[in-house]
Amino acid sequence: MATSIYELQGAEDRRFSPYCWRIRMALAHKGITPEAIPVRFTEKPKIAFSGQTRVPVLVDNETTITDSWDIACYLEETYPAAPTLFPGGRALAHFVQGWANTILSGSIRDFIILDIWRHLDPEDQAYFRETREARMGRTLEEAAAGREDRLDAFRNGLQPLRDALSQAPYLCGDNPAYADYIVFGQFQWARCISDFSLLEADDTVFAWRQRLLDAFGGLAKNAVGYHC
Amino acid sequence: MATSIYELQGAEDRRFSPYCWRIRMALAHKGITPEAIPVRFTEKPKIAFSGQTRVPVLVDNETTITDSWDIACYLEETYPAAPTLFPGGRALAHFVQGWANTILSGSIRDFIILDIWRHLDPEDQAYFRETREARMGRTLEEAAAGREDRLDAFRNGLQPLRDALSQAPYLCGDNPAYADYIVFGQFQWARCISDFSLLEADDTVFAWRQRLLDAFGGLAKNAVGYHC
Repeated sequence: MATSIYELQGAEDRRFSPYCWRIRMALAHKGITPEAIPVRFTEKPKIAFSGQTRVPVLVDNETTITDSWDIACYLEETYPAAPTLFPGGRALAHFVQGWANTILSGSIRDFIILDIWRHLDPEDQAYFRETREARMGRTLEEAAAGREDRLDAFRNGLQPLRDALSQAPYLCGDNPAYADYIVFGQFQWARCISDFSLLEADDTVFAWRQRLLDAFGGLAKNAVGYHC
Repeated sequence: MATSIYELQGAEDRRFSPYCWRIRMALAHKGITPEAIPVRFTEKPKIAFSGQTRVPVLVDNETTITDSWDIACYLEETYPAAPTLFPGGRALAHFVQGWANTILSGSIRDFIILDIWRHLDPEDQAYFRETREARMGRTLEEAAAGREDRLDAFRNGLQPLRDALSQAPYLCGDNPAYADYIVFGQFQWARCISDFSLLEADDTVFAWRQRLLDAFGGLAKNAVGYHC
């Protein structure tokens, strides 16, 4: 019996997908150490067996699951004896995901998009530039331009996180759970691929991120990334 | 032993404060029927005893509490035998509040700000215009201008709510609790004072709002307001 997770890989073995980090943390939360199988942007055939083209893909014994939310729900249902991923209920966790996938993700993407491109192998660079520029309707350089000028607004926009962290050490209370991993994945995305500092060291969000970097024996901290 | 809530009142007895609605729903959740004491914008002396100038103010027997979040926490601690207001934990509820107080509140304010002014008595109109225009750095008319053009973006911005409601009937799961009341208060704010339709009838957020309008014997539905 074995568990494998297919996850995005950049140059220098950088594992930077925010969605894959959500699941890496969720697996650790459930006490599962998976085989982590790297997939580069141009290695989609590796996950063709899953019937779609996006990572993460979880293979748990005979079961294949795609989509990070569905994987988290699968883990919760399949491993109920381990600590719950949803101590606040699935709806509130999905609310946090909606916020992270829109407001947080779009801002961070524009901060790090050129850094992502720089940390890809040449064939992946071509794929990334072509697909992202088509999706965004602008060049990578245009998306990244003036990022310093957007940093204050981004940090102000983290107020809901600070509000939550004024009440407890984690979004989910005294211990982290999936809502924390959702948001943490976005910051770990940046940290693995970019030296652009998103957070100030005296921000409660910085301290919360540090606790999650240290969690599970430093699983996230020890990944290839920048110290910022 | 008695409980009183001081709440904002406009013309025609419209009780439209979003923060007061959070607490009206929270009191009902705890099974408490308060005496609701109206306070108009220019009647601040009525709540001077609380040591500050904002509603809601809760007076529960000998105890006076201000700030809606602090009131909710007081109710939770003082009435632990009644259903909890925070089944998902306080941190996630405060996250939702951070979102509601910034993104949601600012958008709705600009949709309804002229309608608020129209539904105030003359002396309150003068107070409201002066204080709000000073705070915003623009006129009420400038804030409200072009609201139809902003409606699509506002509705798109409700995606975290829809994400949550794809998982359960309420943000807090099978039953509503304080995170629901926080967000509902923003919509009830609009409904009590404005006929501008914020939601489309086929939106899951609309159906969720309807369930909360119907809750507690139609407490919110029966308040003076518009049917929109």
